[in-house]
Amino acid sequence: MKLVRYGRPGKEKPGLIDDEGRLRSLAGELDDIGPETLSDKALRKLARIDPASLPLVRGTPRFGVPLAGIGKFIGIGLNYADHAAETNMPIPLEPIVFMKALSCLSGPDDPLRLPPGSKKTDWEVELGVVIGTRAQYVDEADALDYVAGFCVVNDVSERAFQFQSSQWDKGKGCDTFGPVGPWLVTRDEVMDPQRLDLYLELNGKRMQTGCTETMVFTVAQLVSYLSRFMTLEPGDIIATGTPPGVGIGRTPPRFLKPGDTLRLGIAGLGEQQQQVVATPVTTKRAPNAARAKVAVR
Amino acid sequence: MKLVRYGRPGKEKPGLIDDEGRLRSLAGELDDIGPETLSDKALRKLARIDPASLPLVRGTPRFGVPLAGIGKFIGIGLNYADHAAETNMPIPLEPIVFMKALSCLSGPDDPLRLPPGSKKTDWEVELGVVIGTRAQYVDEADALDYVAGFCVVNDVSERAFQFQSSQWDKGKGCDTFGPVGPWLVTRDEVMDPQRLDLYLELNGKRMQTGCTETMVFTVAQLVSYLSRFMTLEPGDIIATGTPPGVGIGRTPPRFLKPGDTLRLGIAGLGEQQQQVVATPVTTKRAPNAARAKVAVR
Repeated sequence: MKLVRYGRPGKEKPGLIDDEGRLRSLAGELDDIGPETLSDKALRKLARIDPASLPLVRGTPRFGVPLAGIGKFIGIGLNYADHAAETNMPIPLEPIVFMKALSCLSGPDDPLRLPPGSKKTDWEVELGVVIGTRAQYVDEADALDYVAGFCVVNDVSERAFQFQSSQWDKGKGCDTFGPVGPWLVTRDEVMDPQRLDLYLELNGKRMQTGCTETMVFTVAQLVSYLSRFMTLEPGDIIATGTPPGVGIGRTPPRFLKPGDTLRLGIAGLGEQQQQVVATPVTTKRAPNAARAKVAVR
Repeated sequence: MKLVRYGRPGKEKPGLIDDEGRLRSLAGELDDIGPETLSDKALRKLARIDPASLPLVRGTPRFGVPLAGIGKFIGIGLNYADHAAETNMPIPLEPIVFMKALSCLSGPDDPLRLPPGSKKTDWEVELGVVIGTRAQYVDEADALDYVAGFCVVNDVSERAFQFQSSQWDKGKGCDTFGPVGPWLVTRDEVMDPQRLDLYLELNGKRMQTGCTETMVFTVAQLVSYLSRFMTLEPGDIIATGTPPGVGIGRTPPRFLKPGDTLRLGIAGLGEQQQQVVATPVTTKRAPNAARAKVAVR
């Protein structure tokens, strides 16, 4: 199944994409798509519904993040050997784990807002893994059983913020830096998560081309590994790292500016498109005023 | 007000501590204490209730995290100059921002479980700041207006996990590594958040003694700073860094082991007490088996 949430931000309704690519409403079946919807049992129940029996949704509504109730948005750094090389970083011996703020979650086609003061906002197409069943200390051989499905994630990153201190999270969690979707594709539809082609275009020009085949740590290894450090809960999302072609890896580097358009996707998981815009700041003082004060102390 | 949530994990009810230190139920007034309860308006409404009119709660129930619906659990690294010195780290020029996984949240007196394979689990008493009003690009002078109140946080940290890669989050977010509470003390009861004494005892012996006076970045500066990078939402918690006396800073270092007892608190904000226990692993294979596989690849 290709599960979606559609409608205005905060008012999304559950739906699915049928075999003809048409959006149908699940609002008569479910309140929402969230942690309780993602267990094997709940997904089997959903799968028994004949899509043809569901009402077609008219028009072309906005897509939201395809699941609600996300408890953790975990990122994995440098998980493609060729991406590590382009950023002049060694291939990690163990997964590098960071966290994206939940407030950065954004619909797949929502505008990408450059934070005030941003000069180095960059793109990262990634395979997102959605946990379906609570996972603690799971073995690699069983790890995919804990996965509800997969989705496209843009792990947007402001490089100056990311590398200003040793800790990356500040540059990974700005508002709108976590577009997820359009679809949550259940794992039965993904033959092999290590054979998925990823791509990203900037203003129609191909920037990233990759395949999950070249991940340093596989999805199963990541789920198993993370489950040793923290309980993975239904609805948690793992962004599994990006293939080569990010802006900071180019010569000269290319970062996002207002007016740019990103288009990114993964074979079978759908496509995102984001317009890059500046963030209007509406408060009394510019953020640089606050910054200056902090820096002075 | 001193707001609390009491009862079994996942079944907590709202309450408050009256002027005589007695627990009274707010269950007739509120479903729960969460983001909607934390605005100035909602808190003013709560404050109009005469505590003497609320039912006393019998017995000594467990305390949970004093608010539900937390969306971000942000940590600040090395925010006390003397703590930075004991860990041989430079005093930061800007706040060091990391994230604690929400799944690490734990009641103030719940057992602290050492993760399997842990050898360097350490304590960190910290002032927790709870956001009450959505904050974006707020000026330092106004920043405290966005704060609902304060609480005690133990920013438990597994140092081997924390420093295994460049990113700290893996060692900061293990299950039970985020005891919060017992009370959420509304900001009207905290005369000056930069004059709060903090302490932590291990097995009855004083380990940490500090005062928020020596923070590198004040609460107001941290709220203002963070609000430039990500929207702070009602219910977000900021753990503002720890004063000196952590285990890794001692000669020789002292880390937690099963049977240890921690007692920690902040003047006016209450006290936590945690028994340190080992984590029982119930799955088929030991986590080290998975670890070995990951490392080999």
